[in-house]
Amino acid sequence: MANTPVAVIAGLGSGSGTGAGTARLFAKQGYAIALIARGADSLKALSDEINTAGGTASSFPISSYSTTDINTAFTQIRAQYQGQPIRVALYNAGHGVWKPFLDITPEDVQAVTQTNIEGAFAFSKNVIEAFQANEVDEKGKRGSLIFTGATASVRGNVTTSAFSAGKHALRALSQSLAKEFGKKNIHVSHAIIDGGILTNLSRQRRNDPEWEQNEDVRLSPDGIAESYLHLVKQPRSTWTWELDLRPAHEKW
Amino acid sequence: MANTPVAVIAGLGSGSGTGAGTARLFAKQGYAIALIARGADSLKALSDEINTAGGTASSFPISSYSTTDINTAFTQIRAQYQGQPIRVALYNAGHGVWKPFLDITPEDVQAVTQTNIEGAFAFSKNVIEAFQANEVDEKGKRGSLIFTGATASVRGNVTTSAFSAGKHALRALSQSLAKEFGKKNIHVSHAIIDGGILTNLSRQRRNDPEWEQNEDVRLSPDGIAESYLHLVKQPRSTWTWELDLRPAHEKW
Amino acid sequence: MANTPVAVIAGLGSGSGTGAGTARLFAKQGYAIALIARGADSLKALSDEINTAGGTASSFPISSYSTTDINTAFTQIRAQYQGQPIRVALYNAGHGVWKPFLDITPEDVQAVTQTNIEGAFAFSKNVIEAFQANEVDEKGKRGSLIFTGATASVRGNVTTSAFSAGKHALRALSQSLAKEFGKKNIHVSHAIIDGGILTNLSRQRRNDPEWEQNEDVRLSPDGIAESYLHLVKQPRSTWTWELDLRPAHEKW
Amino acid sequence: MANTPVAVIAGLGSGSGTGAGTARLFAKQGYAIALIARGADSLKALSDEINTAGGTASSFPISSYSTTDINTAFTQIRAQYQGQPIRVALYNAGHGVWKPFLDITPEDVQAVTQTNIEGAFAFSKNVIEAFQANEVDEKGKRGSLIFTGATASVRGNVTTSAFSAGKHALRALSQSLAKEFGKKNIHVSHAIIDGGILTNLSRQRRNDPEWEQNEDVRLSPDGIAESYLHLVKQPRSTWTWELDLRPAHEKW
Repeated sequence: MANTPVAVIAGLGSGSGTGAGTARLFAKQGYAIALIARGADSLKALSDEINTAGGTASSFPISSYSTTDINTAFTQIRAQYQGQPIRVALYNAGHGVWKPFLDITPEDVQAVTQTNIEGAFAFSKNVIEAFQANEVDEKGKRGSLIFTGATASVRGNVTTSAFSAGKHALRALSQSLAKEFGKKNIHVSHAIIDGGILTNLSRQRRNDPEWEQNEDVRLSPDGIAESYLHLVKQPRSTWTWELDLRPAHEKW
Repeated sequence: MANTPVAVIAGLGSGSGTGAGTARLFAKQGYAIALIARGADSLKALSDEINTAGGTASSFPISSYSTTDINTAFTQIRAQYQGQPIRVALYNAGHGVWKPFLDITPEDVQAVTQTNIEGAFAFSKNVIEAFQANEVDEKGKRGSLIFTGATASVRGNVTTSAFSAGKHALRALSQSLAKEFGKKNIHVSHAIIDGGILTNLSRQRRNDPEWEQNEDVRLSPDGIAESYLHLVKQPRSTWTWELDLRPAHEKW
Repeated sequence: MANTPVAVIAGLGSGSGTGAGTARLFAKQGYAIALIARGADSLKALSDEINTAGGTASSFPISSYSTTDINTAFTQIRAQYQGQPIRVALYNAGHGVWKPFLDITPEDVQAVTQTNIEGAFAFSKNVIEAFQANEVDEKGKRGSLIFTGATASVRGNVTTSAFSAGKHALRALSQSLAKEFGKKNIHVSHAIIDGGILTNLSRQRRNDPEWEQNEDVRLSPDGIAESYLHLVKQPRSTWTWELDLRPAHEKW
Repeated sequence: MANTPVAVIAGLGSGSGTGAGTARLFAKQGYAIALIARGADSLKALSDEINTAGGTASSFPISSYSTTDINTAFTQIRAQYQGQPIRVALYNAGHGVWKPFLDITPEDVQAVTQTNIEGAFAFSKNVIEAFQANEVDEKGKRGSLIFTGATASVRGNVTTSAFSAGKHALRALSQSLAKEFGKKNIHVSHAIIDGGILTNLSRQRRNDPEWEQNEDVRLSPDGIAESYLHLVKQPRSTWTWELDLRPAHEKW
């Protein structure tokens, strides 16, 4: 499968959210999946699931979103998928901190910063360099890089001083990259996810079957993945940098 | 075809741009197309083309985007497509005025206002009322209403005082409707088209074959239509209000 | 007083809000005040008050914010203050409509449009032309034009489809003018007023003495006027196009 | 002078820009000035200048914007100005990186992050805690905290991926703080400085006397300081979170 394109996905949370949904959908679309995340267990479970279902996936666990760890993961990915072009990359890593400002510790700030800035810069550098080596495909692209954002990407609020600082920074990075590398047929996008996503974690936390079953009030990872796939398929004449995604009944 | 869903498209310009591209794509997707525009000739040409190609389309020429004319068009549409649900609506009408402020006449202001506000409110009212009568479909929607915006929707500039006033107003309407009617499973979206679109008119004006052929530097109506179709297909858990669309090499 | 500068203020509501506060403050600063508004009674009362207090003010009642009525008012102002330069202008006219979308009538849309677009364009044209005839003053300006905006200037919402359409349009106009005429040393600004203002009308409507007396929870017209005066005094090196203004305790 | 209020200013660059201009103006307004910056020499020069001119200023040099260094500086400030309330704080620190994305090093990212996030959070925490101990003053405030932003605070661009990430994060922090602490009568603001500022450094770099002398084309630190003073003087009913500041002739 020397030519099978690779999709690199960083950030999986509990293994049941946006990153996982995107991994599954792109695996079905024929991409070989490279999964980067903390938490080797949920990584392996997802990777196994995709492989069992007939797709191709490999896990690249990291202990942090430091530059070094991200670089190591990409060295492993390049070794694993030698000769296969990386065509899609999703930076879905996050570190949610919701606290009154005076309760935020330097460690919280550091964690948010590493996930949203240090790791995002390192990830993007590896991805952009990989994309630059690609030929332009039939859609006119060398590759698609997508960042998952949040409401906090565009609005600070009373308990989000740290979280929104990180998410604003990530959005700025995505816009800068979109402007700088659009000219080189590299497509960079940013999705503002506005609302609760149905994941194993949110199921547990909420313990609210009505919320789970009502697709009008919560985001589904599969729905998000479909919009990510649309971004990847947009032809060179018509690219989106930013879109928002929210459930039909969300108040905003 | 009592159940064939109807897509109403207002604003066709020279009959070769965003409105026309959307009409063709949705006709292929099985929608009966209702075309509202000034300029009966280009309306009829497009309608004929779609019918000849095996689709269904009808023309509803108007002399202006006044409330009365829009209401009349919808009365005709309802008569023509009796019993068929209106499921998709695109408000693509525009009136471009690029002039230094002191050259703008009260007539320019009136034209921009009628197209972007009076007509848009009347169109939206007819559409929302029609959607409210629909059952929720398999995607969780009663209907999708899309507005075509422009860079001027989010930025005033030296020659766009009138144009951007109109486009800002239209964007505000779209956001208000998205918030008010999302709860009723009506999906309202706004697309910021940032760049030149390849149309018969832009071909003539530019007379620049290189620009025409280079998909990296200009939008294609078909590409825009594909993103509009994606919006219509988004499931209830994952709706976009706003996205931007621009060519890969656009400077922004 | 051939050289006394003139401040033209359009929009006075009940005569006790932002327009009135600005009129009083600029009268104290030595400007001759020209008041444009519907409602000749409150106009005259404010004009009398300023004159009694030792200032100079004249009333120019209009029956609507049509281009014709605005032009007529400026013809009268130029006659009244012959030879005196118009140096400051505030467009404070508004027409609030808060209704569910389906209850909004074409007349509502027309009223919002006339106040925020037709009248604003006509007002701005008269003002910019007057400013262009001025020498640059010691602050480096030919004149200052300020627009009063609202939260709805930057956000549509469930009951503000018409109001926010008008306010977005006004904001776009102000930004376009700021960009076009900054180069000619004409300073255009836009203030986003976010919160309830203490006026005779809001006193009556709320009938809530606690709210009236608590300066943390409501805007005061005098406070707004002070920020408008600051804008007028900004030197040519350091101009603000937009600022927001809200009470200390406002939730936003 | 037990009751003389203190203004803490962090970030002085070459000692001739926004921080210095603000220090001079607030010294004249009767504040004791506490200067925090890297570069002990320019710190001392400014401090001496203010003291010679009859004001009060002290220097608190730091070697970095790390949490530890910022905390140490505040410990020293509290010792130096024992019993005097900190009433004003300006976070003006910056670290400009303008480079193509692929040239940005992890050290660049770290420098931008430390200045705009780590240092800003530590500075804000010390300031907010100090403000909370104050009585509300005659303007209805416990204190005013101002952040200096830039065009990159609201827009990523081709050479600003790192710089705009930092500046977006800082802006998010300022908005979160404004919302959280407005309720406690602490006024937090953010100024978007859009254009070149006249400083010793920009004089040297540009070596363009015409630019220096033309106040229409570059910002003056004194002009910026005047708007910062206006923010500090705004009464509790009428607070600004954000304003932009640019020269009259700036293209934007």
